[in-house]
Amino acid sequence: MTTVKGFTFAARSAGIRKSGRLDLGLIFSAKPARCAGVFTTNKVQAAPILVTAPRFSGGLCQAVLVNSGNANACTGEPGLRDAEHCSRLLADSLGIDETLVAVSSTGVIGQPLPMPLLVEAIPKLSEGLSGDGVSDVATAIMTTDSYSKISSREGSAGQKPYTVLGVAKGAGMIHPNMATMLAFVMTDACVEREFLQQALRRAVAGSFNIITVDRDTSTNDMVLVLANGEAQNPEIVANTPAGQEFAALLQEVLLDLAKMIVRDGEGATKLVHVQVRGAADAADARQVAYSVATSNLVKTAFFGEDANWGRIIAAVGYSGAQVDPSRIDILFDDVPVVQGGLGTGPEREAEATAVLKQAEFAVNINLGLGEAQAEYYTSDLTYEYIKINADYRT
Amino acid sequence: MTTVKGFTFAARSAGIRKSGRLDLGLIFSAKPARCAGVFTTNKVQAAPILVTAPRFSGGLCQAVLVNSGNANACTGEPGLRDAEHCSRLLADSLGIDETLVAVSSTGVIGQPLPMPLLVEAIPKLSEGLSGDGVSDVATAIMTTDSYSKISSREGSAGQKPYTVLGVAKGAGMIHPNMATMLAFVMTDACVEREFLQQALRRAVAGSFNIITVDRDTSTNDMVLVLANGEAQNPEIVANTPAGQEFAALLQEVLLDLAKMIVRDGEGATKLVHVQVRGAADAADARQVAYSVATSNLVKTAFFGEDANWGRIIAAVGYSGAQVDPSRIDILFDDVPVVQGGLGTGPEREAEATAVLKQAEFAVNINLGLGEAQAEYYTSDLTYEYIKINADYRT
Repeated sequence: MTTVKGFTFAARSAGIRKSGRLDLGLIFSAKPARCAGVFTTNKVQAAPILVTAPRFSGGLCQAVLVNSGNANACTGEPGLRDAEHCSRLLADSLGIDETLVAVSSTGVIGQPLPMPLLVEAIPKLSEGLSGDGVSDVATAIMTTDSYSKISSREGSAGQKPYTVLGVAKGAGMIHPNMATMLAFVMTDACVEREFLQQALRRAVAGSFNIITVDRDTSTNDMVLVLANGEAQNPEIVANTPAGQEFAALLQEVLLDLAKMIVRDGEGATKLVHVQVRGAADAADARQVAYSVATSNLVKTAFFGEDANWGRIIAAVGYSGAQVDPSRIDILFDDVPVVQGGLGTGPEREAEATAVLKQAEFAVNINLGLGEAQAEYYTSDLTYEYIKINADYRT
Repeated sequence: MTTVKGFTFAARSAGIRKSGRLDLGLIFSAKPARCAGVFTTNKVQAAPILVTAPRFSGGLCQAVLVNSGNANACTGEPGLRDAEHCSRLLADSLGIDETLVAVSSTGVIGQPLPMPLLVEAIPKLSEGLSGDGVSDVATAIMTTDSYSKISSREGSAGQKPYTVLGVAKGAGMIHPNMATMLAFVMTDACVEREFLQQALRRAVAGSFNIITVDRDTSTNDMVLVLANGEAQNPEIVANTPAGQEFAALLQEVLLDLAKMIVRDGEGATKLVHVQVRGAADAADARQVAYSVATSNLVKTAFFGEDANWGRIIAAVGYSGAQVDPSRIDILFDDVPVVQGGLGTGPEREAEATAVLKQAEFAVNINLGLGEAQAEYYTSDLTYEYIKINADYRT
């Protein structure tokens, strides 16, 4: 079990979820940690977002309280008061300032938090704090996830080793250009605060913002990173080798978690890496990758293990990007199925079908126009997606 | 069976589809008709689009040749030559100029047209021409459609009665801001040519461009209208009562067909009318309607008959439109489930669930900010959609 100096973890079953599963988690740093956050861009924001985002602008956080089973979204003023009440209960039990608490919720929208359950459970949370309890927290934040998601990396700065440990939840409502789900990253590295926020933004851009399961985005998404400096390293700052290493490790952890989320996409059976090259500019590259990665018809063909490149080239064509059909090449892994806009014939398609039978593969698209490139990770669209989402809540 | 003066119809089984179904159709006007067209905005355009669109700028058309089973898309120069060859064969058999022929195809992308079959079938098509054969043409153009789509209206100009008769195909790859599928409209009215094009553009904006089944758009979509003037009415022009009547009837026919397409959406069991009011401006209203109507999570909740307004308000929030959560009202038909951004409670939700059990219902969203409104028609997202699209082609 990965541990991070100065961080302890706890989880309980507060009874928010009727199943009796773990549904309440706590991440605690022995001393206030420098922090950075990325929050949902949805204009309908849940109470925990409204409470936590302003606190993060202060730059310090010592505890993260998170529940599943109830999103505390669309709950108005009473919902805000509930979120603040939870954070105060936790601060009191830990003996820290309330403004050092981040609150986070995920689950059903529009229902008040079951405050009697939380009033009872929150003060008891700290009893269970332990350095190796991160997997319980990862479990407590799951909703439709079929497994918990943890990733870590080791780095060093000034010969002092440090750890970057991340947990995430998410399987549906995953969509780019958002914080996209819940993820919490703990590190004992000492990191300059502005650089921490900058590194987080870049890491999210190269991980959670290039995955898509469906195109919906939540009212509650947040990615938080806490850096408590317990590694005693010289402060990591921008534009240095140590800064580059930290930023790379942070992005690796987030990309690990992001890919786990796509693999665990609601009902997903495949992880597909959509890579676009040869675009006229970066915006075009992104548009094409996005268009292909989010097409229901393309995603359903992946599920059907059908090398239906016609749907892919149609998605390229309606992406809005500059396109010359006669220059488009498409490959499944390294099997070319389209060259210069034309199919390569039934033999190649048979080879491509074998590629699609794998659990993970790449769709490589070369537009043949320029140098820009972009990538996305997506899943297939399956019966199970419908089942999960038609039945959720009931 | 609706007939239109001066128009005859024929259909055959050319053997393009292995099932032996009707797969080749002909619409013929006794004399050249004024014509207008709207074509796919996909940058990857099929050969029939590339052949027909320039001909339509000439303003006259006498025959429409359409096949299902093969889209003649992504077929390069040979595909263009095939489309032209088909149009020449038809022109010869009808004794008309080749430039008066529109060609149209729908089906699988990337396969050459089976020319030997078409060379044999096309010259025989005209033998079957009949004034009441429109339903055979409507059947011949079906692909994953589960029923054929025909609508008509009667109007008059200068006391001369005329008919507007439309046929369409489409059940998947239906998406707004495109011609979206195949539709052919025949009228015996005499209509000024520029006005005909203008009326068609507006009618498409108020019908095919406000429906969505999935978000994919095809390389082959076209909507054509042919007006042969056989009703002997005084020419219908813009900014007159007769012009308004004609434009309204044309839009009614297209909206009828558009709704049939949504009802027949691949796997769809529900037709849902998304109505947005109170937006700050028209673009915002459209964005919100679009965002809700295209959300996979919302569409899956419709299938589950789950009054899950949380997903709707989340889709409103991420639409990009100006939104004040505390002013949002949401109703299923006339049952309020959200007032001022807050849920109205379990009793109302139970009433709303009854609304969702209907085959057709409305989602009414009031943003409470301004006067602008917009609407969309959408379907639910079901197991059957996955089945149809994972298995199509195999």
